[in-house]
Amino acid sequence: MDLAALEQRFLVEPGSRVRLDELQTDLADGRVPLEGLAELKREAKDVLEAQVRALSMAQELLWASDRRSVLVVLQGMDTAGKDGLIRSMLTGVNPQGCDVVSFKQPSDEELDHTFLWRCMKRTPERGRIAIFNRSHYEDVLVARVRPEVLATAKLPDGPRDESFWAARYEDIVAFERHLARNGTLVLKFFLHLSKEEQRKRLLARLENPAKHWKFSSGDLAERGRWEEYRDAYERAISATSTAEAPWFVVPADRKWVTRTVVAAIVAGSIGALGLEMPGTDPSRGAELADARRRLEDEAAGRGGRDDREEGTSRRLGDR
Amino acid sequence: MDLAALEQRFLVEPGSRVRLDELQTDLADGRVPLEGLAELKREAKDVLEAQVRALSMAQELLWASDRRSVLVVLQGMDTAGKDGLIRSMLTGVNPQGCDVVSFKQPSDEELDHTFLWRCMKRTPERGRIAIFNRSHYEDVLVARVRPEVLATAKLPDGPRDESFWAARYEDIVAFERHLARNGTLVLKFFLHLSKEEQRKRLLARLENPAKHWKFSSGDLAERGRWEEYRDAYERAISATSTAEAPWFVVPADRKWVTRTVVAAIVAGSIGALGLEMPGTDPSRGAELADARRRLEDEAAGRGGRDDREEGTSRRLGDR
Repeated sequence: MDLAALEQRFLVEPGSRVRLDELQTDLADGRVPLEGLAELKREAKDVLEAQVRALSMAQELLWASDRRSVLVVLQGMDTAGKDGLIRSMLTGVNPQGCDVVSFKQPSDEELDHTFLWRCMKRTPERGRIAIFNRSHYEDVLVARVRPEVLATAKLPDGPRDESFWAARYEDIVAFERHLARNGTLVLKFFLHLSKEEQRKRLLARLENPAKHWKFSSGDLAERGRWEEYRDAYERAISATSTAEAPWFVVPADRKWVTRTVVAAIVAGSIGALGLEMPGTDPSRGAELADARRRLEDEAAGRGGRDDREEGTSRRLGDR
Repeated sequence: MDLAALEQRFLVEPGSRVRLDELQTDLADGRVPLEGLAELKREAKDVLEAQVRALSMAQELLWASDRRSVLVVLQGMDTAGKDGLIRSMLTGVNPQGCDVVSFKQPSDEELDHTFLWRCMKRTPERGRIAIFNRSHYEDVLVARVRPEVLATAKLPDGPRDESFWAARYEDIVAFERHLARNGTLVLKFFLHLSKEEQRKRLLARLENPAKHWKFSSGDLAERGRWEEYRDAYERAISATSTAEAPWFVVPADRKWVTRTVVAAIVAGSIGALGLEMPGTDPSRGAELADARRRLEDEAAGRGGRDDREEGTSRRLGDR
């Protein structure tokens, strides 16, 4: 099946108004016909592995070419599968070239700065991928649904009406555009979970003692605000899906679907950057030939000694 | 004399096009009549001291009220007097509430991020003043005048034409607007020096062995690009003087003028924020009365013992 078509399918067109209830949480629910679905389900494991491998190769190219960086933003309701997605994506990826940043409740120091401050600090270096597990979007989601969270930021007085949130969307769009202009590929994923699937996953946590640590009674309180969060997501995603930093709404009721689709979109987008391995630069040919000649001349100057052995002992001596 | 009028005089009106050659580098050159100038010159030292004292009090209010922060950006040609201005401004200011950040050539780590990254990291915490000695504006000044500096940033390919610089101005405006929206007062000062006064100051450095360390032959090379820098400043200042983050072009040929004007504008702008000392909050009256009653009750419960002495030994014991 055509993964490029999948990407287009989940993209939120810049300027469009998202209605989450109209978008699938389960790719295989039969509501929208999907060519090759039967085949995809049969080969699910192979397809996921292939995409994770593609991502690993894409990341190596990113790292070696040292020109661009990638920021992956992951958002979703509780139990939408962000942690598992990150573990799955990073299988085989060189950990030196990848940072996972989990944004929790802001610290006192973070609250003493703007809401973009802690995110800007953790943006990826050139050559690297940063995965934001939650992100600056919390400041237009939980901050919007729960006014007491916003109050901790001690902002200047003023109305907290639509214009306040519009200003935050504007700041986020400008921030991400700035990153994109300076070489960062920004990809944002909303893991779209159904309320019924969340109920099952929360119940499963309660039934499995090994997962009790993942459960907090706050989870049910947040679930009680489901529709408010959905509205906040719809507004935020609609206002901030841009050509420079698009949103993808990915079905999250089946984990293998989420993982395959996200890995495929990230790998494909890095591939589309047209990066090149540094070794392909023809101007280095002369440099390498010169280095080889100097090493050979060195041996010639020393006559008949066994340079290889001497070299070995020197290397050991260096330790 | 009216310092509020001075502020208005040096403000670059948002949307206007600055022509530096038409603006004074010497307030006292007689080109533009200035009411009270004779008096001002006579009392220069007193006026400066009064402004520095006002700034110190304004900073204490900022620190105690813990609601807002202040970012002061200082730009100017070599020898324009930025270092001396900072020393003068910070006389008497609580060092705990003030950060001076000098931006030099970017480090490798900084070059691996966007040009705003290192500046965002050093924006002031709530309650504090940050003074940027040079700033993100270097990335539209020296980077514009000397293409080899821009090349070190390894940006994505693309033309480096007017649209490239316009995009940078746009990013800067959005960045500063974001700071302002979240409680940071942003004030930007261009120390406007004449080319002739720079010649004298550079010569003075060469004639005084104690100042030789301040001189580098690169200074003359930069001086050779005077007109290019002037043009880059004019474009940058015109494009980025906004209501949220205004530019002031302050005469720099006489140091006491620069120092008085900048201190007055910063102190006055903090004063205009309408901050209040936390002690004026009437709701704390009950809390303080309660604390006093409990301390008194404690003594009453203990009867006739000499609590004061015991308290003293306890405090010593705590060390």
